[in-house]
Amino acid sequence: MTDSSQQLDGVIDLLGLLAYASLVAFFQVADDAAEAVSLSDKADLAGMAVIQFGHFELLRDWLGELGVDPQSAMEPFVDAIDSFHARTTPSDWLESLVKAYVGDGMAADFYRVVAQLLDEPTRALVLRVLADTGRAEFVIARVRGAIGAEPAVAGRLALWAPRLVGEALSQAPRVAAAREPLARLLAGGSAAQLGEIGRMFATLTDEHAKRMASLGLAQ
Amino acid sequence: MTDSSQQLDGVIDLLGLLAYASLVAFFQVADDAAEAVSLSDKADLAGMAVIQFGHFELLRDWLGELGVDPQSAMEPFVDAIDSFHARTTPSDWLESLVKAYVGDGMAADFYRVVAQLLDEPTRALVLRVLADTGRAEFVIARVRGAIGAEPAVAGRLALWAPRLVGEALSQAPRVAAAREPLARLLAGGSAAQLGEIGRMFATLTDEHAKRMASLGLAQ
Repeated sequence: MTDSSQQLDGVIDLLGLLAYASLVAFFQVADDAAEAVSLSDKADLAGMAVIQFGHFELLRDWLGELGVDPQSAMEPFVDAIDSFHARTTPSDWLESLVKAYVGDGMAADFYRVVAQLLDEPTRALVLRVLADTGRAEFVIARVRGAIGAEPAVAGRLALWAPRLVGEALSQAPRVAAAREPLARLLAGGSAAQLGEIGRMFATLTDEHAKRMASLGLAQ
Repeated sequence: MTDSSQQLDGVIDLLGLLAYASLVAFFQVADDAAEAVSLSDKADLAGMAVIQFGHFELLRDWLGELGVDPQSAMEPFVDAIDSFHARTTPSDWLESLVKAYVGDGMAADFYRVVAQLLDEPTRALVLRVLADTGRAEFVIARVRGAIGAEPAVAGRLALWAPRLVGEALSQAPRVAAAREPLARLLAGGSAAQLGEIGRMFATLTDEHAKRMASLGLAQ
């Protein structure tokens, strides 16, 4: 089965969603990085932003090869993604770090799950983007260090992390309802299997709990 | 002649200066890109920011290989470069574009001139960074388009561009005075040849005039 037999509209929606999410992640993480006190913290977080831009470029170029205007493909997802970021503005450097780490992880989980639903060649593209994640590991040492120095930090961050997941998941049904081709693609081609989306989100939540434990924020 | 016979302190200063300038350029251009109205403008300017981050990484890694802490090497130049940006905050999207284009061009000129003064292997590094410039060309079409649509824009931008050069050059003597090893390196190894620095700046100014002409801002 190739893309042509799948709902191409759904694939275009997915690429548009991921492209815009990556572009905005670039801007958000770059903005947060600028606030770091030390130059090495600035550089590390800026490096994570740059990886997001690389994802955006891959996805945008792929849309172009499909003959689709990237701007049109991204447009339907601007409101949901901008709302997510507006509702999850970090109030300090540690919240920025946790947001970058959680966001990077959730994105990787989503790419991994979605790759199973895609045909070639889109699957290969998604796996290529996925291979280029994981530079968020430096966050673990910083957050654990901050908690070690001031244990009260853990309580605050333990509330912050689930809020990020909650806000992301609360945008998802809005997007799925507005973009039927995307919902159908994520449901594995059958509207009857929309329960699959629910199971997918459950997987994402499990992985999130593991990440929280690695930050020293057991839930 | 190798780096070991040149004033290594001067080379370290130069790498620290260029690394910090690149890192800050990344943040500034990313910040400006976020303000663009269209997604393609956002993406194009963000792409220029990302190139700056690549320069930063090359320079930082080189400092690391020399056994120098990058943060210490950059620190002496933080005030001068931050002052430059604080005094040249773009007031709108066109000023941002012109600043990115002029900044990219001035940096390329500086790298080109400085490469002639360096021994291997630092020269090869500088040329490698230089090879990765020039993605600012899209700016020409945008600025010319804006001037075509509203000729009064040209007058305003024709005042903005020389201000950028003036502010950059006004920081230079401050840096040279504070960092004798760097001044000596730029003077070609001899304090008696400090006039060379003046000639170098004259070259930069000539190239700047050509860039202004290409933007449709003849001076």
